[in-house]
Amino acid sequence: MSARMRIDVLTLFPEMFDGVFGTSILGKARDKGIVELSAVNFRQYSTSKHGQVDDTPYGGGGGMVLKPEPIFAAVEDLLRKREIEGGIVAAELPANESLSRPRIVLLCPQGETFTQKKAEEFAKEDHLIFICGHYEGYDERIRDGLVTDEISIGDYVLTGGELPAMVMIDSTVRLLPGVLGNENSAVTDSFSTGLLEYPHYTRPTEFRGMKVPDILLSGHHANIEAWRRRESLRRTLQRRPELLERITLTKQELKWLEELKREESALHE
Amino acid sequence: MSARMRIDVLTLFPEMFDGVFGTSILGKARDKGIVELSAVNFRQYSTSKHGQVDDTPYGGGGGMVLKPEPIFAAVEDLLRKREIEGGIVAAELPANESLSRPRIVLLCPQGETFTQKKAEEFAKEDHLIFICGHYEGYDERIRDGLVTDEISIGDYVLTGGELPAMVMIDSTVRLLPGVLGNENSAVTDSFSTGLLEYPHYTRPTEFRGMKVPDILLSGHHANIEAWRRRESLRRTLQRRPELLERITLTKQELKWLEELKREESALHE
Repeated sequence: MSARMRIDVLTLFPEMFDGVFGTSILGKARDKGIVELSAVNFRQYSTSKHGQVDDTPYGGGGGMVLKPEPIFAAVEDLLRKREIEGGIVAAELPANESLSRPRIVLLCPQGETFTQKKAEEFAKEDHLIFICGHYEGYDERIRDGLVTDEISIGDYVLTGGELPAMVMIDSTVRLLPGVLGNENSAVTDSFSTGLLEYPHYTRPTEFRGMKVPDILLSGHHANIEAWRRRESLRRTLQRRPELLERITLTKQELKWLEELKREESALHE
Repeated sequence: MSARMRIDVLTLFPEMFDGVFGTSILGKARDKGIVELSAVNFRQYSTSKHGQVDDTPYGGGGGMVLKPEPIFAAVEDLLRKREIEGGIVAAELPANESLSRPRIVLLCPQGETFTQKKAEEFAKEDHLIFICGHYEGYDERIRDGLVTDEISIGDYVLTGGELPAMVMIDSTVRLLPGVLGNENSAVTDSFSTGLLEYPHYTRPTEFRGMKVPDILLSGHHANIEAWRRRESLRRTLQRRPELLERITLTKQELKWLEELKREESALHE
C-alpha cells in the first residue's frame, strides 16, 4: 500500500535530512506508512561531466544561479517514478482525468510567508515537492515553468532552503490523521483559543524559592479555570495585544482585561 | 584556542542535529574553529530512576509539562564546563567583573518573532544556549529563573523547538566573521537593498521555449542595471508592497513605480 502522502525534497545536501526524517513525529509517521519522505540530490541530474548545477548570471554581478535543467529533470523523474509505483499508466486514464499535479514549493526569501493556514492547505495534498537552493539564486525559468508556490518561513536570512523545508514538512505532517496521539495534541496548539497559553506548573511545588501558585493546588476547578483564562489574557496583552482584537471576549473577560491593563500600567510607572 | 562562539542546544532528540551541524556552513564554521556546536540530551540530568523529564500539570488538564530540575541542572553543568575549559576560576576575577551570562533562549510559540535583527544581536554573543521542548509545555519557573529570550520563528505550529533552534543557529552563525566566503554573500542577502531581488538567469539562453531577456545578453551594463532595478521594484510591488514605504526612491524609480502600477492594474482588468 502506498502512503497517504509523499514528500520529496530536492537539495544538494540530502544528508542534512537524515536526523530529522528519522526522528520523532516524522520518523513515526513514516514508520506507520502515513508519509513517504525522501531527500534527492539534484546534482545527479546535472548534464555536465563535473556535476555542475549552477552558473554565473547573465548580465553580470556576483553570486551563482541554479540552472533550470537539473531541477526540471529531477522533478520529471520523481513524477515518472510516482506513476510507475502507483501502477498508473497514463494511457489507461479516462480522457477527463489526469494525474494530480503535485505542489512544487520553492523555498525563497521573496516568497509568501508560511503560516498555519498554509500548513493546513499542504496537509490536504498527496504529493509535495520542495526545491531547496543553497546560497545561489534560482534561474527565473524554474519559477515560470515549474513552481506552484514560493514560500519563506520568516524575515531572516538563511544559508539555504533545507531548514525551511524541514519546518514546513514538520508542521504539515503533524496535521495528517493518525500522526499525533492524544497525548501530544493539547499543549502545543497554542493558537487554538485565540489567546496565548497560561503558565504551566508541575512538580515540585517549590523549586529554589519559586512556588507553584496556591490556586493550582486548591483542587477548585472553576477557580483554576478562571485563573488560567485570566493569565492567558495577561500574557496575550503583554506579548501579542493585536490577537485580542480578533476574538470575542465575554463580559467577565473584558472586566479582567481592564484590571490587567491597570496592573500593567502600574508596573511600568 | 577556544572558538569565538559556543552554542549548546538542550533537547531530548540530539540526533536530529547530526546532519545539520555537520553539513554546509555550520560544518565549515565548526571545522574552522569559529563556532563550537553541541546538542545535549537533558534527560541525563533527570533525578528520577526512569529518566523522567516531564510530569502532569498542577491544576489538571491535558498535556505534559517539562520539569524545572533537569533544565536548570543541564544549564548549570554547561556553565561549569565552560568555566573549566576557559581556565577561568571565579575567585580570580576582579570584584567588578563577572563571567558574561550566556543568552538562554527558550523556543516557544508565544515568544517574540525571530527576525534578522535578532540574528545580528545573537551574533555578538559568545555563548548561546537553546532550550527545546517537544510537545510539552514548560514549567513557568524555567521562564522566570533561567531564560533570557523567548522566541518563535513564525506563526505556525511545530512538533518541537529543535527545528527553530537550527534555523536561529544557521542565521546567526552565517553572520560570524570568516564564515561566509565572498562567493556566498551576494545573492542570499535579499533584503540588503530594501527591495526584493530581480529575476536571475543563467545558461542556456533558451530552455523549453523560455528565453533569457535580450537585455541581459546585450552587454550594456547601464541598461542592465536599470532593468534589474525596475524588476526589483516590480517584484516588491507585487509581493511585498509594504517594503516600498520604508525606503527612499529616486525620481526615476518613482516614475517606474507609476508605470509598473499601471501595468499591474491593466493585467488584472
